[in-house]
Amino acid sequence: MPLLRFDLLEGRSATEVKALLDAVHEVLVEVFGVPLRDRYQIVHQHKTEHFLVQDTGLGLDRSKNVVVLQVVTRPRSKDQKLAFYRQLCHQLKMKCGLNPQDLIVSLVQNTDEDWSFGLGEAQFVTGALGGDHSSRGTKSSV
Amino acid sequence: MPLLRFDLLEGRSATEVKALLDAVHEVLVEVFGVPLRDRYQIVHQHKTEHFLVQDTGLGLDRSKNVVVLQVVTRPRSKDQKLAFYRQLCHQLKMKCGLNPQDLIVSLVQNTDEDWSFGLGEAQFVTGALGGDHSSRGTKSSV
Amino acid sequence: MPLLRFDLLEGRSATEVKALLDAVHEVLVEVFGVPLRDRYQIVHQHKTEHFLVQDTGLGLDRSKNVVVLQVVTRPRSKDQKLAFYRQLCHQLKMKCGLNPQDLIVSLVQNTDEDWSFGLGEAQFVTGALGGDHSSRGTKSSV
Repeated sequence: MPLLRFDLLEGRSATEVKALLDAVHEVLVEVFGVPLRDRYQIVHQHKTEHFLVQDTGLGLDRSKNVVVLQVVTRPRSKDQKLAFYRQLCHQLKMKCGLNPQDLIVSLVQNTDEDWSFGLGEAQFVTGALGGDHSSRGTKSSV
Repeated sequence: MPLLRFDLLEGRSATEVKALLDAVHEVLVEVFGVPLRDRYQIVHQHKTEHFLVQDTGLGLDRSKNVVVLQVVTRPRSKDQKLAFYRQLCHQLKMKCGLNPQDLIVSLVQNTDEDWSFGLGEAQFVTGALGGDHSSRGTKSSV
Repeated sequence: MPLLRFDLLEGRSATEVKALLDAVHEVLVEVFGVPLRDRYQIVHQHKTEHFLVQDTGLGLDRSKNVVVLQVVTRPRSKDQKLAFYRQLCHQLKMKCGLNPQDLIVSLVQNTDEDWSFGLGEAQFVTGALGGDHSSRGTKSSV
């Protein structure tokens, strides 16, 4: 369920984008306990003049690899969110060589009735999809 | 007022996009009771490597026609939301031939004071725009 | 912290876009009291068939210069929001010649724990970033 929007500068190859999306999805599955196929990822690549990212005075260096990730999700606990940022940072460094200074995440929450995955149904309301669990890839865990 | 963002794969013609936007707007007007000219629609078309949509284990087949629709709106009742998904699915099948397996909707709610439609004013706060009604196309219904 | 997404029609030069982004950021700093380097701005330019903006029956004329601005932010007071719309309208007219009828703003709120600015940390939670102030450009004000 979480719907993810990635904003990047132009220049990543399809292979690089795939590695990024795969790594982020693995963290989602692990930390939020969503099913393996609960994957909704959208990428926008921008010219430099259309993508302006500074550092809020934190002294971070942003490079041309900077990633802004927006996530819309049902409510997650504070612990889950903090673990998500931490794991994301770690895994993207390991798997994509992303500098931890180049990762910005912003979450927005909605609720069960705010999702329809197809067929005109709200699957969290009808019961076709259940609540959150921490097990990996169970179909009832979204 | 609702602000709609459509994410699609590349390849739809302007005519096809128009048919999609028109059909979605008609459902909004009918189900949410917004005015006829309460229309704010943004479309992004993506290369396949930038748009990854799976099925949360629901066994849905997504085709190249898949539509991801994000809606930001003032609060709507659960009944309105469920009717919106249902009607959207029905109308897009009828009018655009969209397979019900190819429609994903995600809503995010905000409030009256979160909108300015022009002139630097918050029209729901000033009273220039009123609350929600179910009548079609009345100016007081947004 | 606020994350801003600008949707525009194709055709603005890099210089015109920069003037727009600069002017909006100055208003954010002034009205929301965010630090000077608390700047996260994303621009999408669209073909006319992918960007449909009407007027909710308010009798506003939208031109090819119309700007739709989506802002995700931690909670702001109603007064701050109203001042933001008002000042934005004023400044964009002054600095970019934008007609007040061509500015649409939509806000979405999230919370402290919904932001990570880098390093896998949630800087509002760890205390690396503090609360909101109205002073201009202080690093503790985000």
